Amino acid sequence: MDADTQVAEPVNVAADAESYAEFRSELFRAGLLIDTGVDGLYAKSSVYEGIVAALDLLITSTMVDRPAEVLSFPPVLARWVFDKTDYLKSFPDLMGSVHTFRGTDRQHAELISLAESGGDWPGCLVPAEVVLCSATCHPLYPLCSGTLPEGGRRFEVNGYCFRCEPSVDPTRMQAFRMHEYVYVGEPEVAQTHRDGGLERGLELLGKLGLDVEAIPANDPFFGRLGTMLAANQIDEALKMEIVTPVCSTERPTAIMSANCHRDHFGVPFGITDASGGTAHSACVAFGVERVTLALLKTHGLDPADWSRGVRDMLRA
Amino acid sequence: MDADTQVAEPVNVAADAESYAEFRSELFRAGLLIDTGVDGLYAKSSVYEGIVAALDLLITSTMVDRPAEVLSFPPVLARWVFDKTDYLKSFPDLMGSVHTFRGTDRQHAELISLAESGGDWPGCLVPAEVVLCSATCHPLYPLCSGTLPEGGRRFEVNGYCFRCEPSVDPTRMQAFRMHEYVYVGEPEVAQTHRDGGLERGLELLGKLGLDVEAIPANDPFFGRLGTMLAANQIDEALKMEIVTPVCSTERPTAIMSANCHRDHFGVPFGITDASGGTAHSACVAFGVERVTLALLKTHGLDPADWSRGVRDMLRA
Repeated sequence: MDADTQVAEPVNVAADAESYAEFRSELFRAGLLIDTGVDGLYAKSSVYEGIVAALDLLITSTMVDRPAEVLSFPPVLARWVFDKTDYLKSFPDLMGSVHTFRGTDRQHAELISLAESGGDWPGCLVPAEVVLCSATCHPLYPLCSGTLPEGGRRFEVNGYCFRCEPSVDPTRMQAFRMHEYVYVGEPEVAQTHRDGGLERGLELLGKLGLDVEAIPANDPFFGRLGTMLAANQIDEALKMEIVTPVCSTERPTAIMSANCHRDHFGVPFGITDASGGTAHSACVAFGVERVTLALLKTHGLDPADWSRGVRDMLRA
Repeated sequence: MDADTQVAEPVNVAADAESYAEFRSELFRAGLLIDTGVDGLYAKSSVYEGIVAALDLLITSTMVDRPAEVLSFPPVLARWVFDKTDYLKSFPDLMGSVHTFRGTDRQHAELISLAESGGDWPGCLVPAEVVLCSATCHPLYPLCSGTLPEGGRRFEVNGYCFRCEPSVDPTRMQAFRMHEYVYVGEPEVAQTHRDGGLERGLELLGKLGLDVEAIPANDPFFGRLGTMLAANQIDEALKMEIVTPVCSTERPTAIMSANCHRDHFGVPFGITDASGGTAHSACVAFGVERVTLALLKTHGLDPADWSRGVRDMLRA
């Protein structure tokens, strides 16, 4: 795929939107997703959750070739960590800043009165110490500050992250789970971590019967500056994505990414590798909601009808 | 415990704060919780997560006596649903309103500049369509709008909710998981659901070796009006809590609640039972983080050293 063409393409075109909306209606009718009245925000059935759980087990057993520290993070992130990631510069429109009330009794009465009359009640709130988690691996980097052990550190993390992008496309959820393998340490190993993860991800997702391809990632950087950042990202090809057709073969959906961050996190979080250089990092991230939806679209809405091979892999 | 005395007691007193901080330090040293620099926000180790997972299985196998619909919700809630729960009136200081950026390129430049200079950049954000989930069962009620089938509906839900209350008390997390059983339907059955759940919860938590007691709940309602609401809550005893000493025997920690909401959700969400009356609801909610921490405090920080009986129950 030509890089320039890809940047110029809008992410969602009208024809795709119809296919997405139709697929979402099918998921609603099958009871796999349940409408909440907000685009991108769904309740999920136990059948859907069963696929997610099986995928998580499969990903863990396939991807971990050496001991990794397994950590769990809540769906909110310390604001001071968020501030250091530069996310506000690149994706301000996707962020979720958490605000709360710290006023008096009288101010509380004003808050309620404003809320009831449709006034500017959010102006009564103040920023909390947390924001919604912008990426499942973001909370990890501050834990690595200082000098790393020889060979660096490897992590497995799995949790919710948030993108404020209401959409009729069911694969574009506002809150969704990422299952990630992260390496923090030496530059060459970070590159190998990304390349090896990408290869293994391609193989795994292909075996699940998905028509997959690896392409340079094309993140939705904000604004005019963002157009430049997106072009750079594709040129440098530091972040790769595995895509598969869900509702469009021309504009396939990213279901996994493999990203070499170089020193993007090592610098702000003061992480040094064993040899004294600024640490590099890389993450391999499965979008488990998107893989689940790609499987449902490809193999049908009832997992009991999936081929023996796929069901065996997912022990479903 | 005398109801009036309980209302008059502050939730945290200085002496307790020291014990809580000490317990938290022990959890940090043991690597069970990992400090993020924000009180109430922690990463968790795989050992901690193993206890949570085992507890969830045990709770499911103990509490479900008849088929329940199992649903999973993301950690954010539709704002229109939040608005109908009256949470803003009772607990404005615990809420998490999600805000994001919807401006132009120029406004983005201002946002960044304000953020870098420590100015009022949150004033550049607008409320998103979602808020942090205020209670794990809140997203459930709008799904019940309309007329319920004979006998009502039963649900099992498990997920993250949020309370903006930074604290050195490790049992007072800002983002934490609740595992709930919810009934929506006839008034008498709702009452039975609460009473039966409370009894079963007491038995289960007692068998796990926790010193438990059921008392009327004493929620931290906000402000002067809140003092009255709290007194009413205790008088009516609609919400009960199971408490156990974690860092204080005088002020034990609530680890489970059993709450009969009467028509609190039936009215705003327009839920009618099969006989045409406004539906009542009741929820039985395990604070799995708090049960986990109570077990660690009671039985020791290494689950491998726990008694055979407790380990068998948790298949640990």
